[in-house]
Amino acid sequence: MSGRKGLRDSHVTLAHGGGGKAMRDLIESVFTEVFEPPGMEDQARLQAAALAEPGAKLAFTTDSFVVTPVEFPGGDIGKIAVCGTVNDLAVGGARPLWLSAAFIIEEGCELALLRRIVASMAAEAAVAGVRIVTGDTKVVGRGSADKVFVTTSGVGVIPPGRELGAVHIRPGDVAIVNGVLGDHGAAILAARGDLALSADLESDCQSLSALMEAVIAAAPGVRAARDATRGGLASALNEMAEAAGVGIEIDEEALPLRDEVKGMCEILGLDPLYLANEGTLVLFVPADQAEAALAAMRATEAGRGAVAVGRAVAAHPGMVTMRTLFGGSRIVDMLVGEQLPRIC
Amino acid sequence: MSGRKGLRDSHVTLAHGGGGKAMRDLIESVFTEVFEPPGMEDQARLQAAALAEPGAKLAFTTDSFVVTPVEFPGGDIGKIAVCGTVNDLAVGGARPLWLSAAFIIEEGCELALLRRIVASMAAEAAVAGVRIVTGDTKVVGRGSADKVFVTTSGVGVIPPGRELGAVHIRPGDVAIVNGVLGDHGAAILAARGDLALSADLESDCQSLSALMEAVIAAAPGVRAARDATRGGLASALNEMAEAAGVGIEIDEEALPLRDEVKGMCEILGLDPLYLANEGTLVLFVPADQAEAALAAMRATEAGRGAVAVGRAVAAHPGMVTMRTLFGGSRIVDMLVGEQLPRIC
Repeated sequence: MSGRKGLRDSHVTLAHGGGGKAMRDLIESVFTEVFEPPGMEDQARLQAAALAEPGAKLAFTTDSFVVTPVEFPGGDIGKIAVCGTVNDLAVGGARPLWLSAAFIIEEGCELALLRRIVASMAAEAAVAGVRIVTGDTKVVGRGSADKVFVTTSGVGVIPPGRELGAVHIRPGDVAIVNGVLGDHGAAILAARGDLALSADLESDCQSLSALMEAVIAAAPGVRAARDATRGGLASALNEMAEAAGVGIEIDEEALPLRDEVKGMCEILGLDPLYLANEGTLVLFVPADQAEAALAAMRATEAGRGAVAVGRAVAAHPGMVTMRTLFGGSRIVDMLVGEQLPRIC
Repeated sequence: MSGRKGLRDSHVTLAHGGGGKAMRDLIESVFTEVFEPPGMEDQARLQAAALAEPGAKLAFTTDSFVVTPVEFPGGDIGKIAVCGTVNDLAVGGARPLWLSAAFIIEEGCELALLRRIVASMAAEAAVAGVRIVTGDTKVVGRGSADKVFVTTSGVGVIPPGRELGAVHIRPGDVAIVNGVLGDHGAAILAARGDLALSADLESDCQSLSALMEAVIAAAPGVRAARDATRGGLASALNEMAEAAGVGIEIDEEALPLRDEVKGMCEILGLDPLYLANEGTLVLFVPADQAEAALAAMRATEAGRGAVAVGRAVAAHPGMVTMRTLFGGSRIVDMLVGEQLPRIC
């Protein structure tokens, strides 16, 4: 068999997307040898006892990834594609089970790059405890895509009785983040290299499923969580305030930010509240469970830097405000326009 | 609310992918108003009694679509994205339930085009009896994609005891297709317009879920089915022959081909056996159920043209042969290289 799977090319050609022998060789040699999907049909066929439990719900989510550069300090497009979809499931209270992965590849893409991306996806899937069970490959001509785009979809199970959602947030609830903000956005910006910034920054790209299970076990009253990706913490909080019909107040002093990120933002006139994250969540818990939640989070790898950053309030429903370092208060609006294209 | 959702732009800009207000406006105005996904979280939360049935399996599949042109006679990239994923589920014996839809949009893409694609997806989802429950939007700069790419993933349920798969094909089984071959590939080729061909051809793009349910009910012994997309009937049959370890023999005389498709293939030196289809399947049934399967298929819209085209044989395992019109026999190999890039 190994002879058959041999792929002598070093770059992807249009033939690798044509549905014939070349495509099969590419898929077998680069993808299925690593992901080992169950079965040979075009669909994965799966069974999970957890899904059959009365009252359990199936969670289903999808995201396309177009980040540039495709490899950057702290991750690559493959790692981000696994983390992003795992995290969308996890912040809703679901236990991630299975992922699909679809690749749109530009003609001329290096096979060695594809192999690194695939290896990175397999490694992160193992960390997150999910399996990549089905996939697809398309090839487009030079100039019709940019190296490679990856779309992952995820299926998970929400155990009976678990009801996380922004609508459950109540005034008095405490807002907690799991660690420093903006590292992903800042790392990508630095990695693009056109700013002559030599920051020693890494993306925070990581899976949050273990963290979410820990916090739900320790603080079963947790109301809602959101992955603060594109649009940053500010956009996540605005969406939550609006969905819940509560106000949200954060303290500038409490926001965990690296000096490098603060410095870069000052130089470039960016607001770290809008910088993208790929392993950072914000969650709301009843005040009497905040300490338990923080302790449980800090005991996990992804939650070592967990801190309370604010609270839900009855005032100004739908609006997010920040107490500034100087004792004033300002409105933190949703991002208007775009801060950084192709950040994820 | 309608004021908030108003989108005054006529073309997509990078800001529509930035995670802020512009992105929310785009998503609300173009996507969620039409698809009406359940809930406001980043994940769909779903319940289906069929999934909880003992012995039921979950089917999960994904495909990216990069077809060019994005609109063509008989369909568009949206319709193809729904049909393709519904059909991947259906040919495996699954009842399609839910789809996700992720869009990678090139800056400058017309919003009117996006709206047509989305309307087409919603219409086809209704025909196929599935719901589009979750999605994503990314925007890339001009020249980093080609108008729009769509990735759909699908979740369905395989009822207990249903076991379709190429490994079950036995010598003597009859091969049946549901209608004419190659219309999709030929229609796309003509629609590209660079061949000065004025063929009156439409893509066969259609959902096959109702057809599959009908044939399974009438011929419960059906062994396996494949969607004959990229690589055409020849590639589907080769994959099945190899998986089953049987030979497959088809009759050239029996192959349903339009004169226009035959003519185009003759002019261009293409082989219709390798032309892509988007609503054509090949299935294998035990010989004593072939008449029942054909009758059930012909009673459905998608199966009106159903015919037997060949059979599985004990000879030449893993190989597909064709009895030609002239009484000879030739090997029908897998597609080598590519026939038409970006056909789906």
